[in-house]
Parts: sequence; structure tokens; C-alpha cells
Amino acid sequence: MNTIASLPTLRVAVLGSGTVGTEVVRALREDAEELAARSGAHLQIDSIVVRDTTRPRDPVIPTDLLSTDAEAAVAGADLVVEVMGGIEPARGLIRMALSRGASVITANKALLATHGPELFEAADAAGVDLFFEAAVAGAVPVVRGVRESLAGDTINRIVGIVNGTTNYILDQMTTAGMDFDEALAQAQELGYAEADPSADVDGDDAAAKAAILASLAFHSRTYLDDVPTTGIRNITAEDIEAAAQSGHVLKLLAIAEQRRDNGLRGVAVRVHPALVPADHPLAGVHGAYNAVLVHAAAAGTLMFYGAGAGGAPTASAVLGDVVAAARHRATGGRGPAESDYAALRPLGSEHVRTRYQVRLQVQDKPGVLATLAGTVADHGVSVETARQVATDHGQAALVLITHLASERALGEMVRALGRLEEVVHVSSVLRVEGH
Amino acid sequence: MNTIASLPTLRVAVLGSGTVGTEVVRALREDAEELAARSGAHLQIDSIVVRDTTRPRDPVIPTDLLSTDAEAAVAGADLVVEVMGGIEPARGLIRMALSRGASVITANKALLATHGPELFEAADAAGVDLFFEAAVAGAVPVVRGVRESLAGDTINRIVGIVNGTTNYILDQMTTAGMDFDEALAQAQELGYAEADPSADVDGDDAAAKAAILASLAFHSRTYLDDVPTTGIRNITAEDIEAAAQSGHVLKLLAIAEQRRDNGLRGVAVRVHPALVPADHPLAGVHGAYNAVLVHAAAAGTLMFYGAGAGGAPTASAVLGDVVAAARHRATGGRGPAESDYAALRPLGSEHVRTRYQVRLQVQDKPGVLATLAGTVADHGVSVETARQVATDHGQAALVLITHLASERALGEMVRALGRLEEVVHVSSVLRVEGH
Repeated sequence: MNTIASLPTLRVAVLGSGTVGTEVVRALREDAEELAARSGAHLQIDSIVVRDTTRPRDPVIPTDLLSTDAEAAVAGADLVVEVMGGIEPARGLIRMALSRGASVITANKALLATHGPELFEAADAAGVDLFFEAAVAGAVPVVRGVRESLAGDTINRIVGIVNGTTNYILDQMTTAGMDFDEALAQAQELGYAEADPSADVDGDDAAAKAAILASLAFHSRTYLDDVPTTGIRNITAEDIEAAAQSGHVLKLLAIAEQRRDNGLRGVAVRVHPALVPADHPLAGVHGAYNAVLVHAAAAGTLMFYGAGAGGAPTASAVLGDVVAAARHRATGGRGPAESDYAALRPLGSEHVRTRYQVRLQVQDKPGVLATLAGTVADHGVSVETARQVATDHGQAALVLITHLASERALGEMVRALGRLEEVVHVSSVLRVEGH
Repeated sequence: MNTIASLPTLRVAVLGSGTVGTEVVRALREDAEELAARSGAHLQIDSIVVRDTTRPRDPVIPTDLLSTDAEAAVAGADLVVEVMGGIEPARGLIRMALSRGASVITANKALLATHGPELFEAADAAGVDLFFEAAVAGAVPVVRGVRESLAGDTINRIVGIVNGTTNYILDQMTTAGMDFDEALAQAQELGYAEADPSADVDGDDAAAKAAILASLAFHSRTYLDDVPTTGIRNITAEDIEAAAQSGHVLKLLAIAEQRRDNGLRGVAVRVHPALVPADHPLAGVHGAYNAVLVHAAAAGTLMFYGAGAGGAPTASAVLGDVVAAARHRATGGRGPAESDYAALRPLGSEHVRTRYQVRLQVQDKPGVLATLAGTVADHGVSVETARQVATDHGQAALVLITHLASERALGEMVRALGRLEEVVHVSSVLRVEGH
């Protein structure tokens, strides 16, 4: 092994100095010797790009390295760490860095979910690394797991809890019996949810991560727009309770799978709340934790679990990538590449068959179940369990769990049920996964 | 991206053609094009080294590549895949391969746990990759997680279930109420345990993996001999039941941690059965599955979960390493290196403080608890809970759970209790982890 003194120096530009950027700078400064030993190079911060150099910052940020000139910073760097977020100027700066032969580490899920393939191709053309472990599930090393550990295997399906905010809210609704608004307010109080929580609770953050995982796992080009997304805003305490009564827990899942449907081969990606069995590995993921299950042909089922967000965990993921990219530069090599993109088209959710839980409010009188059963059968859907609970005013709550059904058949069945005189209203329709 | 046709060719020698070797050869042949795209090189099997070329084999093994001349095979290879197992000749062949500049992928945990540091140094001196994901927990990518993803973080503690056979046995004892012999017989019938199960049930296999993980995580030199090991042979149905009554599950754990004890800094590694709380992530690991929890300073707690053994999962891990090593050769670089070894000495279990469950058979008469409490207090041990159940013949079963105590204090206390006239015998002493 080289002695530390004889190692080459790599110049690092850090774009952004929010929570993650600050933790990255802290580690690069405080653990410099250890990181040099592991990287085979000294990592020297040349500039930290910010919008306003005069704002008060954590004292670990050396003010003399602050700059507002991102292009100059990128032009002089061997390694560019992009933790500024947003589409532009991040996209242009990463393209510029790659074309100048710098390696890039980014935590920017929104950018990768909308422009990932273009950036991967630019990295490939330039022969440099583009790493992004921190963009999916924070410190949980699922990107490296899919991209490297399973590089000799075939991935069939990925199912994950990739948004900590919504998992915290659903977990509080489940374990503490809160309703959605109460759990959201608590999540905001604890800093798990933003003042405007829409990106989390409407599923968009999870959808971006699902698109990235699908692109990686299936060597496909999957974009955010290819991901049908339902958030958790409409989940009620009654949904959670009905799920519990059939031995299930409600989770917001990101699902990506290779499918063949009537000869059509493609990738189906989706984000929606779903019931999972209480003894399923994902059911045990509590609080703001993330977990991703990967089903591969040879490896079987793998699960990656950990903190999906936060400054320090995200910085840990960024730094793992910095060390790997630095090591490749120091030794002249490159990290994992994608295969040629497979011609897998995105399949809409009409190609997906799942089980469903349908909750209905019905009139509590003889013959109702038989009438409903007839309508269900007419649509080619088969019911696994039906549970009826008398409520008030001559009404009853009815909870059906179906066998596998297509979204179309299910949708038509639900509309037909809604038109029946015996049905007061359809309370909710939720998917059931994990069986 | 290069077109497939223009890629260089790397020559691969596979040492061993058991279950794992056969699956590796199958993938190298059947997925050749995909692996070439991901590796940036064609992977051409030059030879498959076996002890007896005439034995009947899976038809995927090309008989014209079989050879008994391991040295010739290694001499001509760019990549050596060692899946033969055992110390010699594997050690000599890997050293030869490394010194000739070949990259090595091995699944050999016994070898790494006894001669790992010497081999890592040889790889470092030669500037080539020595990868061994398959040596710990099969397809579960914990080696890559620790070595690469957490390369910019500080690992404090690793706790894992790393032996599927013993987890299967303990899980059957817990969920189906079997006793040890019955569960072992079933594990043997299902192929989870060998005819001679000692390497698994006595904890040696787990100890080898613990030594490897400790070396990796703490950049220390930890050998199999440094790991105090207790297996599960003496675990009884009564132990499992007593654990359940206090809300715990019994698991065989491999634990590696950095500790400071009276100014002494070192690495404490151990393998023993332990009670973990029923809602702990490791408690939910059933059947022959493996799971490893890693506690890092910035990343927090990560868990890696999956199939810990079996031909296909182990081959998947080997192939991920083959692709990474091939990619480095094709692009001229190298994968992760170790830091300089830290001067962390192995600390014996006398430096470890844990909680304990002590089961005693005592005389069921007034004043017994007070006498025992006095003896316990005399040894500086404090009791968290005591539970007494009357049995037969004027005796009672007493289960104590202590607060943190050193092994020495606990051992002396147990011996003192055993000498008391009121104590019929000490039934078992087990550690409690995960609080």
C-alpha cells in the first residue's frame, strides 16, 4: 500500500451546502486521512458552490472556499458532488462536469427520474463514473446492491418502502390509531414532513425513486411520467382498521417489475398504498425507515433496510460513492456500467394483476351478499374473503378481498357495484400485495 | 458504449465444480452476452479444475474444459474463481494467482477467517482485486455494503444471523415447539444441515464469518481464533419458552464491535445464542434466512437480509464480484482497498458487558428470593426482572434477567448461586441482546 504522503490529490467541487452538503464537507475535512487511505488519493475541497456566500453557515464550512460561480467550480474539479437538488442548473452542471471528464456523485432523485438516461449516456461516452446511491433510500445501499452485487443475476421485481414521511404517517395511524391529519401534523412537528407535504404524501418522491430503481434493475429507460402514482392522502382510519382485521398492514409501496402480458414484454412501475400481510418483511418497517425487497432469479429475495433520509445518512451514501469514484480515478478504472438498454417499454397499470380490498357500505338486508356476488362474478373477478359488519341505520360495512384481478376488470366491477341499489357507497379500493 | 464484438476477452479459471461452481459456469455460459455488456469484456472459461475429470457432472459443464492441473489453470487466467473450499491447496493457488496479477473471487470463508490479512496484502501488493462477497451470508451483499457503501462512514457494531442452518433449527424450536434433536433431524432431512452438523451447530461457520466481517468493518486483523464461540447444541425447549415468556426470541448471533474498556481500544467479536426482543428486526428472520445489522456513525442502522446459502444465491454473489473485477481489468482500475490496518487488538469476552437470562431450579420455600437477591447483589449484578414458577416436588423454576454485567461478575455470581443450599441447579445462562 502507498503511504499517505505519496498519494495523488483529487480536487472536489461540492455543489450545494444544505444539510447533506454540510455533512459531506464535515467528513471530507474531519476524516481526511482515513478517506485518503480508502480512496488512494487525497480529496481536496476546491470549492463549495452556494447561492449566497454571506449567509450564516455551520463553522465546518470554510468561508474562503464558498463561491457562487458553479461553472468555474466544475471546470476545475476531478470529482463533482451535486447536492443542490432541482433540475436546472444541476442538469447542465452535471453534463458539463461529465463532458470535461470529471466523475459525478449526485443525490438528485428528481433529476435522475426525469433525465437519468441522458446523464448515464454522457457518463458512458466520457468514460467516467456517475454515482447516485444517495438518490434512493438515503444510506440504504440498494443502488449498489442492484447495480453491482446483482450484476451477474436477473432481477424480476423490486418492492419497496422508499419514502420515510409516508411510512411514518401510516405507521402512526396503525400503531397509535391516529387519523391522517393528526399523523401528518405530528410528522411535521418532528421534522419528518415539510410544511408543504405534497411531494411526500402524494407519492411523487416515491415515484421518482421507483423510476430510478426500474431503470437500474431492468436496464430500461423508465421516467417519472411512466409511474402511475397514488399517494396516501385519502387513507382513513377505517382503511387501516379493515386491513388489520384481515391480518394486513397498510404501506405506501413502490413496485417495479418485468412483465409479459399477451406477448408484450415490458416494465411495469407503480406507486400506491397497499395492504401487506402482517408477517411480511415490509410490514415490520416502522417509523421513518425505508426498506427495499429485491427478487432476483438466482439470489432469491434480498432486503435492504435503513434510514431513508436525513443529512448524516444521506452524506454517508454520498461519501461511499466519493471513495469509490476517487479510487477509480486514482487507479485509472471505472465502476459499473449499464448494459445496453433493453427494449423494454413501460407497461401501464392495465397490464398489472393484483388482489384488491374493496370496502362498501351496503343495506343490511337479506339477499344483499348474493346480489353483490352475482355482480362480482359477472366481471370475472373472484372473491377470496367477504366480511360484513352491521353498522347503524340498517346499513352494514362489507369488506371484500379478491383474488388476482386486472385493474380494468376490478374498476368495472366497482362501478357496477356502485350502481346497485343495495350499495350505499363504495368506501375505498386498495391493492393487496406480498402474498 | 463499446459494441459487444469489440470487447477484450478475459480468461477465467474456475477452481471447483460443486454446487456453486456449476451455477457459476452455467451463468457464464448462458448469460455470456449480458455479462460481457456489464463487464466490458468477454468472460471466457479456460478451465474448470476438479479432482476427478471422469465423475458424472451437470451437462452445463463442458468436459473438454475439465482439468486436474490447478497450477496450469491459474497460470493462464486473468480471473480466478475459487469455489473449491478448504485451506490448502486453495490458499497456495490464490497466492499464486495474485502474484501473477490475476484477480481472484473466492467464496472460501474458512480460508479468509484464518489467512485473510495475508491474502489481502498480497492482492494489494499486486494491485489486483480480491473479492469475496459469497464468503459471508451468501447472496446478501453485506461485504460490498461494509467495504464500499460505508467506505466514508465509521462502523461501530455489526450484529448478524449468518448461519442459516442454526436459524432454521432455532426457528423450528420457536414456532413449532420442537426440541433441538427433532429440529436438527428435520433440517438434515430438508438439506439445510449436513450429516455431520457440527460446523453449523457448534457455531464455527458463524465464527468464521464474524472474523471476516470484523476485519472488514474495523480494518483490523481478526482471526477465527479470536472469536469466542458457543453453539446451539445445549439450547432446550425450556430456554426457548422462558425467552418467549419475557417477550424474546432465541437467535444465534455473530457480534463484532469496537470497544474501549479501561483505556484499552480493540475489537470484540463473539458468536453465541442470545435472546433478542420479539419486535427486534432480527427476531423476524425466519427459516434458513440470514440478516446482518450494521450500526454506523452517520448512516445509522442498516440491515441486509436474504438467503445465506445455496448454490444459486452463492453463485449470484460470486458473479457480481466477477463482473466488478472484470470491469476493473477492462478499464485498468481497481476496486476497494482496505485502509492501513488499525492497531485494534482483539478483546476477549471479559471486556464485554451484556444482559443475561439465568434460569435456576430452586426450592419453593419462603425466603428463597431474598437469599438469592443477596448473593446477586454481592457480585455487583443488578436484576431487572425475576419470574418464579412453581413446579413439582416443592421446587420452583426461577428466571432472572439482569441489567448489563461483565462476563466475569456474572460467572462468579452464577457459581455462587449454584453453591447455595436453596438452589437445586442452574439450568441455563444466556445473553440478552438488542435492547
